[in-house]
Amino acid sequence: MALDLRSQALKNPIDVAEYLFRRLKQVGVQSVHGLPGDYNLVALDYISKVGLRWVGNCNELNAGYAADGYARVKGVSAIVTTFGVGELSAVNALAGAFSEYVPIVHIVGYPTTAAQRDGLLLHHTLGNGDYLVFSKMSAQISCAVSMLNDSHEAATLIDNAIRECILKSRPVYIALPTDIVQKKVDGDRLNTPLDLAYPPNDPEKEDYVVDVVLRYLHAARNPVILVDACAIRHRALDEVHEFVEKSKIPVFVAPMGKGAVNETLPNYGGVYAGDGSNRGVRERVESADLILSIGAIKSDFNTAGFTYRVSQLNTIDFHSYGVKVRYSEYPGVRMNGVLRKVTAKLGKLNIEVGPNPNNEIPEVELMSPEPTITQAWFWPRLGQWLQPNDIVITETGTANFGIWETRFPADVTAISQVLWGSIGYATGACQGAALAAKEKGIKRTILFTGDGSFQLTAQEVSTMLRNGLNPIIFIICNNGYTIERFIHGWKDAYNDVQEWKYKDLPAAFGAQRGQVLTYRVESKQQVELLFMDKEFSGGDTKQLRFVELVMPWDDAPQSLKSTAESAAKRNAEAAMSPA
Amino acid sequence: MALDLRSQALKNPIDVAEYLFRRLKQVGVQSVHGLPGDYNLVALDYISKVGLRWVGNCNELNAGYAADGYARVKGVSAIVTTFGVGELSAVNALAGAFSEYVPIVHIVGYPTTAAQRDGLLLHHTLGNGDYLVFSKMSAQISCAVSMLNDSHEAATLIDNAIRECILKSRPVYIALPTDIVQKKVDGDRLNTPLDLAYPPNDPEKEDYVVDVVLRYLHAARNPVILVDACAIRHRALDEVHEFVEKSKIPVFVAPMGKGAVNETLPNYGGVYAGDGSNRGVRERVESADLILSIGAIKSDFNTAGFTYRVSQLNTIDFHSYGVKVRYSEYPGVRMNGVLRKVTAKLGKLNIEVGPNPNNEIPEVELMSPEPTITQAWFWPRLGQWLQPNDIVITETGTANFGIWETRFPADVTAISQVLWGSIGYATGACQGAALAAKEKGIKRTILFTGDGSFQLTAQEVSTMLRNGLNPIIFIICNNGYTIERFIHGWKDAYNDVQEWKYKDLPAAFGAQRGQVLTYRVESKQQVELLFMDKEFSGGDTKQLRFVELVMPWDDAPQSLKSTAESAAKRNAEAAMSPA
Repeated sequence: MALDLRSQALKNPIDVAEYLFRRLKQVGVQSVHGLPGDYNLVALDYISKVGLRWVGNCNELNAGYAADGYARVKGVSAIVTTFGVGELSAVNALAGAFSEYVPIVHIVGYPTTAAQRDGLLLHHTLGNGDYLVFSKMSAQISCAVSMLNDSHEAATLIDNAIRECILKSRPVYIALPTDIVQKKVDGDRLNTPLDLAYPPNDPEKEDYVVDVVLRYLHAARNPVILVDACAIRHRALDEVHEFVEKSKIPVFVAPMGKGAVNETLPNYGGVYAGDGSNRGVRERVESADLILSIGAIKSDFNTAGFTYRVSQLNTIDFHSYGVKVRYSEYPGVRMNGVLRKVTAKLGKLNIEVGPNPNNEIPEVELMSPEPTITQAWFWPRLGQWLQPNDIVITETGTANFGIWETRFPADVTAISQVLWGSIGYATGACQGAALAAKEKGIKRTILFTGDGSFQLTAQEVSTMLRNGLNPIIFIICNNGYTIERFIHGWKDAYNDVQEWKYKDLPAAFGAQRGQVLTYRVESKQQVELLFMDKEFSGGDTKQLRFVELVMPWDDAPQSLKSTAESAAKRNAEAAMSPA
Repeated sequence: MALDLRSQALKNPIDVAEYLFRRLKQVGVQSVHGLPGDYNLVALDYISKVGLRWVGNCNELNAGYAADGYARVKGVSAIVTTFGVGELSAVNALAGAFSEYVPIVHIVGYPTTAAQRDGLLLHHTLGNGDYLVFSKMSAQISCAVSMLNDSHEAATLIDNAIRECILKSRPVYIALPTDIVQKKVDGDRLNTPLDLAYPPNDPEKEDYVVDVVLRYLHAARNPVILVDACAIRHRALDEVHEFVEKSKIPVFVAPMGKGAVNETLPNYGGVYAGDGSNRGVRERVESADLILSIGAIKSDFNTAGFTYRVSQLNTIDFHSYGVKVRYSEYPGVRMNGVLRKVTAKLGKLNIEVGPNPNNEIPEVELMSPEPTITQAWFWPRLGQWLQPNDIVITETGTANFGIWETRFPADVTAISQVLWGSIGYATGACQGAALAAKEKGIKRTILFTGDGSFQLTAQEVSTMLRNGLNPIIFIICNNGYTIERFIHGWKDAYNDVQEWKYKDLPAAFGAQRGQVLTYRVESKQQVELLFMDKEFSGGDTKQLRFVELVMPWDDAPQSLKSTAESAAKRNAEAAMSPA
């Protein structure tokens, strides 16, 4: 009886699904990715009802990648799948988001609570009555799992999940049984926005850390700043920008930190990645007597195979979970507040300027009479064609390494998956990013993927067309998995792919007449002409643009070559015998 | 020292990867599905070395589906993926194989044992040093997990995994670190084939059960046999065929049992699925005084929404794990031996013959002047075009229900995923099945999928072309997810899909001139002409045949309609309050 009274007492009862989607709208979600399935159909009705857009992807893995791309532009995203079959197809994309700190709310339509309790032998089950098995799998790659099996706690669980998702910047899993969708919760809760502020640092502890940092900073003769992925993913870019601009300390980015710093600033110096660094950068960074490292993820591909030569004795690490000065650790002190105070109290610094970033086309490439589009020529050249505010997505492969040589205009958002590195990601992410860009009034979303990678998720071009998106897509046609060839199997058939007529795909995917412009460029001169073509380059062009960019099968950026060599060596390494 | 001596003592040392692939070859694998990735590349070298074919799929989910289709034809299959990103993409396909008892050996290329031990921050990890997380996820959907971290136990673990896979008829997971690939194991072990025989039943217990079964059988006045999926999946078809043919008892199949029984036998009566049964079958089965149920999986979609009206008091259940006579259970007594002895000792039976299967085209459809291809017309008509030995794959959706009305010639293999029901499965499975068919000299592999479902995994047509396969593919063009419409969202946009030019896809996927024949049929007459076309229907045609089969968006087989209605009702059911 108590429960019934509680339900009746709701002054403004609304359905659980409506509450969920209204909360998502409040935190900035405008479009929901995913696929229909019979356990989520009734919930889908609420998406248009609350004024959200349903994207309607071609499959769940692609939808997951798209949600990842959308979240990297908008700060959060949502995907709806169905129990078992749908959610498991998306699990690789969500693991990637977990790995790379991308906040995605994953809503899974579940069979009724009664069916779960009785262990019914329903479709989309393992046939063993176990209804918890899939949530257990997703728990491994989610920072919260909310099973909405009781309407009385549904609103609280929804609020907690969305809050965790955004604050921890990782996926959360919400199980929504069909019989709970239309249960009532208190709609008045929606009048209180979710508190999404990071808990402040302990002021005394923060001041202590700031003093320590400033002491080392003032003592340094030639400090440098190195910005990496977590500065972006844990939302410390405002603090970083202020620190970089006010301090004028030479600043570098790790590959995963590309786009975190305004690359047109006079103190921007280029990409640092150990042996894979831009020219002159390695020497400069490694000779600094203090490295202010912000949001580092020192993974193999982000360090060109663990080739940093930097001492912890010269390093201060700023993280979302704490600060580390040489070997002194200060857990629980978030970088944001520390950076803000360090910037405010900078005082006089010793700064050794330079180097200037060198992302010019190498002379040997400029002088070459060969028409072939080489990797060494293309990526620096690309920098001159990019525009402020562009979103640039690069696939694991030659693109992800090539982009190290591209100097960005201001305010470029770079999207890549350097740590998780799932090929196929970039095409899916492009759909989500292009939609997010449209919602934010950003004009150009530009994808670089390889032919091998494109084949995994090609049908998401159909979703772009269906949603009227106009990204610029470059398919690097180089006959297969070039990055793998550099690791092992140089000419082996397993690194080949079927040769597609890529340019014909948008039409087969149902592009309307005039909806797509297609191109094939096979020489540097054709690239130059393409970049000069206003219809192609324009931000106001309504058409999706699709380019076959032909490059040699055996060519790769230098940074990829050295990273691949190191990976091959590690793969062959015999394990030491345990002591 | 002891370990070193052991290594030196190997008379015929071979590499771990070679051992693994030779074992797979011994049990019938001729082709290996999957994708390259840097943690599996060195292992891939051994595939061609031992004389296996590398398929080279477009993505891992599709490769998993293909491996499932291949295993359903050949008895076992293998897929190779790479750590993290690759394996997780395949997990939905492997969960389906677990659910539906399909034996797939999943080989995952792992980083070195040293990297694992040291928790290196490598690409394709969650960035937290946890190298066990993905194997834990797969353990939920595998009947064995073998981590080959020590070469001294590698051969034993490989043998056990393959044996478990085949005997339990479910996926197994083998983790193969890059530094173990070329470690040495005892090649002479390969001279002893794996023992793949089911352990025999306890003879006394088996005889006891046989006596009980025979007692009920002799007492029965009108027994029937009902054959379901597990008779196929747990390899009891020889015993079933003998029992059915010798006993002459009227025999019916559940939807998941389609193809298990020779449908041209005089005692074959049709499909039983409660309210979704072929005409006349429900009355016949439910009025029997004894039902010999072989390998039942009584899931919602296999019983038209739990609409069996059959009493356990009239039922004997034969399973791989035991026999159940009314309510008396005999665990551990496998059906195979029991069925063999029951057949041998049949004696005189009371048999009430009939009904004859009625899979004719309904008169109202025959008489209709409408040219439209209706579901009610098409599926019975299809039965007349099928040929002995055909492999017929149907997708979850209208095809999976329509096929209940298709009477098969002898020796047709039917492939569907009625329990797991992951859309997109059928196109992937078709690639694997067509390849297995080619290896076995079976001439025709025929796929029926829907436009919505096809979009999930469309690129596997490219893999078919790459491998020179010649299946006959029907895309049912009916504007989206028709099965979902019948459950919820009749005209809602989330059940629509982008309209593709399906016929143009094989060419875009790189079909050579003359490699593909494409068709579009929009009327019953065009279907008739197509079925008469020898180039289209021939088993010796080298070309892949690709048909757009246009059917109304709002039409579905009657069995689907009633199953969907029942699913919709269940989804809306309020849970009872717990007592």
